[in-house]
Amino acid sequence: MRVIGLDPGLRHMGWGIIDAEGSRLMHVANGTLRSDDRLGLPERLVQLKNGLEEVLALHCPQSAAVEETLANRNPDSTLKLGMARGVALMVPAIAGLEVAQYLPMIVKKSVVGTGHAKKEQVTMMIGRLLPGCTPHSADSADALAVAICHAHHAATRQGWAAGSRKAAEKA
Amino acid sequence: MRVIGLDPGLRHMGWGIIDAEGSRLMHVANGTLRSDDRLGLPERLVQLKNGLEEVLALHCPQSAAVEETLANRNPDSTLKLGMARGVALMVPAIAGLEVAQYLPMIVKKSVVGTGHAKKEQVTMMIGRLLPGCTPHSADSADALAVAICHAHHAATRQGWAAGSRKAAEKA
Repeated sequence: MRVIGLDPGLRHMGWGIIDAEGSRLMHVANGTLRSDDRLGLPERLVQLKNGLEEVLALHCPQSAAVEETLANRNPDSTLKLGMARGVALMVPAIAGLEVAQYLPMIVKKSVVGTGHAKKEQVTMMIGRLLPGCTPHSADSADALAVAICHAHHAATRQGWAAGSRKAAEKA
Repeated sequence: MRVIGLDPGLRHMGWGIIDAEGSRLMHVANGTLRSDDRLGLPERLVQLKNGLEEVLALHCPQSAAVEETLANRNPDSTLKLGMARGVALMVPAIAGLEVAQYLPMIVKKSVVGTGHAKKEQVTMMIGRLLPGCTPHSADSADALAVAICHAHHAATRQGWAAGSRKAAEKA
């Protein structure tokens, strides 16, 4: 299964793609989409959308996962975060992908083992879990972490499904 | 000039289209796009995007204006409002339209003459300014008000431009 993880923001949107076969993970690519803050909001959203569409067309992920960053205290920032997250949710859905969302705590727990891990721990664990991978930015490291989290959850779901099949066969 | 006004929300997105020739306004169409709240966020955003694309294809507006509703106190609602507003800003921009944004106070002032007008006053003035128009919903009434506001501002800008041209010719 090829997974794209996304860490959305209006200024920078991190993306990271991995291949997951059972518990084996391989890094495919990662990067950061940027919007030009000298442009208006409509044009910036179109930039992010076009960039994300290019990434999907180039790497053909089968599944998408988006970090559900908690809302900021500043309502104006929250509104802009909402716009960027909307792009991250909508563009893969238009391409026919299922889109999952994970809270930062769940992502950290999945990658480092604790929901309260620091950013550096996450980055270090990405290097361990995806040998040879150098994240392009902090945002693309976060995006890779979301992709890893999604792969773990998918593997668990498959495990459960296999477990229930075996139980059903025995019955 | 044909203008589409938009009052974005995740559950309901009002739209209203008018033709403006100088100070003369004519109602073209109005309606409400709805997203199915039994679906996930990605699918709901795709519904709004598809609906808005259909409206643009059917009525071919040349300019778009979006109500810049103030952020809600509830961060989760603000995040969802941001997602819907992102769709309202992005879809017309993808279609090549310029997209303007107006604060509710400016819209009310433009339609009723005061920034603190009540909803019913706005609806009543829409009936006066666009004879024969029956808004489909409160959201589409707000969308028509944004379109009227944009037409007024565009007429003023043209007036200024004509004024400066005349001044330049005299000089």
